[in-house]
Amino acid sequence: MIEFGWGHPDQRLLPVEGLRRAADEALQQAGPAALAYGAEQGPGRLIEPLCARIGRIEGATPEPAQILITGGVSQALDLLCTLLARPGDVALVEAPVYHLALRILRDHALELVPVDADAAGLRPDALEQALAWVQRAGKRAPLLYCVPTFTNPTGRSLQVDRRPALVEIAARHGVLVLEDDVYRELWYDAPPPPPLVSYAPPGTVARLGSFSKILAPGLRLGWLQADAALVRRCMQGGLLDSGGGVNHFTAHVVAEYLRMELLDTHVASLRIAYRARRNALLEALTRYLPASCTFEAPGGGFFAWVRLPGHVDATALLPRAEAAGVSFLPGARFHSNGAGANYMRLAFSLLPVEEMEVGACELGRVLSAL
Amino acid sequence: MIEFGWGHPDQRLLPVEGLRRAADEALQQAGPAALAYGAEQGPGRLIEPLCARIGRIEGATPEPAQILITGGVSQALDLLCTLLARPGDVALVEAPVYHLALRILRDHALELVPVDADAAGLRPDALEQALAWVQRAGKRAPLLYCVPTFTNPTGRSLQVDRRPALVEIAARHGVLVLEDDVYRELWYDAPPPPPLVSYAPPGTVARLGSFSKILAPGLRLGWLQADAALVRRCMQGGLLDSGGGVNHFTAHVVAEYLRMELLDTHVASLRIAYRARRNALLEALTRYLPASCTFEAPGGGFFAWVRLPGHVDATALLPRAEAAGVSFLPGARFHSNGAGANYMRLAFSLLPVEEMEVGACELGRVLSAL
Repeated sequence: MIEFGWGHPDQRLLPVEGLRRAADEALQQAGPAALAYGAEQGPGRLIEPLCARIGRIEGATPEPAQILITGGVSQALDLLCTLLARPGDVALVEAPVYHLALRILRDHALELVPVDADAAGLRPDALEQALAWVQRAGKRAPLLYCVPTFTNPTGRSLQVDRRPALVEIAARHGVLVLEDDVYRELWYDAPPPPPLVSYAPPGTVARLGSFSKILAPGLRLGWLQADAALVRRCMQGGLLDSGGGVNHFTAHVVAEYLRMELLDTHVASLRIAYRARRNALLEALTRYLPASCTFEAPGGGFFAWVRLPGHVDATALLPRAEAAGVSFLPGARFHSNGAGANYMRLAFSLLPVEEMEVGACELGRVLSAL
Repeated sequence: MIEFGWGHPDQRLLPVEGLRRAADEALQQAGPAALAYGAEQGPGRLIEPLCARIGRIEGATPEPAQILITGGVSQALDLLCTLLARPGDVALVEAPVYHLALRILRDHALELVPVDADAAGLRPDALEQALAWVQRAGKRAPLLYCVPTFTNPTGRSLQVDRRPALVEIAARHGVLVLEDDVYRELWYDAPPPPPLVSYAPPGTVARLGSFSKILAPGLRLGWLQADAALVRRCMQGGLLDSGGGVNHFTAHVVAEYLRMELLDTHVASLRIAYRARRNALLEALTRYLPASCTFEAPGGGFFAWVRLPGHVDATALLPRAEAAGVSFLPGARFHSNGAGANYMRLAFSLLPVEEMEVGACELGRVLSAL
């Protein structure tokens, strides 16, 4: 099976040897401190170089008090739902958006209300409309979940002039924007626009960062960048009060990896590898898909989003594609309301360049036969 | 400050060198598999030896399908609250019990209803009464949280003949018993009675295990042992579906530590160290506390529970003790309803034997001066 379905980093690109040295050093240097209960916020050894790195890459350096070390975006999202939302509350969600985040929101019994995105990303007018609906319905919408940069599944980014507008609307309505920002560093043409958090008055945006895509997903390590008051709120919750910092030992390992100055070189090598895969996929899609299928060139991230002719249901198509040896995720998965039936998401992160062409060729064959 | 307050393992007893070798081996052996997204249930490399070890120690070997690798008891508790309870539901809680678990339950907006324990542990008749109240009040009580073995804060264990009775009541009322079992292996006189989970019909008990006390708390690694259906329910929740196994990399490190057969020796050395501390504390308390203060000898775990004369409020006493250079946790913290005012919890896990005597002497001085 040629697997365009899984949006995972390629295991062959994981920096095993660097992390092995980092784990070894962390236990030699920090010793018992890396193994005892850790500070709720996460170890300063990681928070400080992380702040410095964000500042170096983005220009604006967060204060350490604005960072919480997390167990990745999923854990952070789960924690924020527990602390900030109640069953029956509305979670506004970009549409389409990362489908498994929707599952976490649903586990907290939140009502998902989609906010449409177009080629320029989440539409501010659609957000205004959704909030007006929430108000008329007498509901509370404490959270908006979105992936503004190289979004999963479309690969698009929220246009730079929409960013302050979106933050302004959220601030006016008291909605906390959860900015899932895990693909930011994986740009292939030009660096992306500044994150929403950089436009935000305090308390309006929580940016969810992760080492999953730029280092290794099995580490289960990420960070939250937000208003210091929100970071404190998380630290003072029962989960962190009881267990101490989330994933404390691994945080020490990654702190050591940063101290060894290995991350920037690694991310640069990922950009080269994934850029080649993106280019190979786009070339192959251009060559093999029928002209009735359209797609854009994603500027970063892991995904291409292919629009099929209006009458084609990608969910119905999937078994035929799999029978031909190629898999993908149907577009409806990325909507909370069944929209997006004639789209498919193709992940180019997992496949070597040579398989990409075979996969696109098979997909084209299946689509042409319809 | 002589710190009887913190129930933490002593950092000097953490097996830094063994875990350093295990981390090194895990990355050499498993390589990328230890760093990619992991199976929701946790890696088989850890689950299988864990099952075998439980069987070796306790006689009954769980099926792998009955185990979920967790980020420790706090994370497991948080996950079960998200998936199984709704705000306004009742969480029955042993009284007194681990105070920070109560905070996690409260973060999920559960109503805490205490179930009294006596010297033989949680009272089955008190559980029946509490459940009758829940029924009369028209509420739902999906969960009972308890620490039946070497409990925090009292060090007592649920008597063996009460164990099947308690499980039977829970089963009859459809209550899931969350058996926090983190102190089981730290026994100092004789092994404890079998866990509740061993008496339970499927679906009645979820046992929460942890490597925090027997290995290192900063690992943030534990396991849940329950009915296979409950394990699947957790695996199918959004958090694990999105992020894969909780703390996958660390799970590989601990799997390697088990493979190297280091854990049993380590636990045996902990028993020796903590037994000496328990004995030293009990001797010192006997020598220095006024006769109006009473306490039992805990058979395991980290804590001694001291009953002060009825008119003494331990919360009011604490600042005077701290002024004299010794600290503890007041008993009221371990009750959801302010009971237990004339008790104090003394942790003997963190202090070397020589400090224990000085601390008990100071405490005795403060108490005698009342």
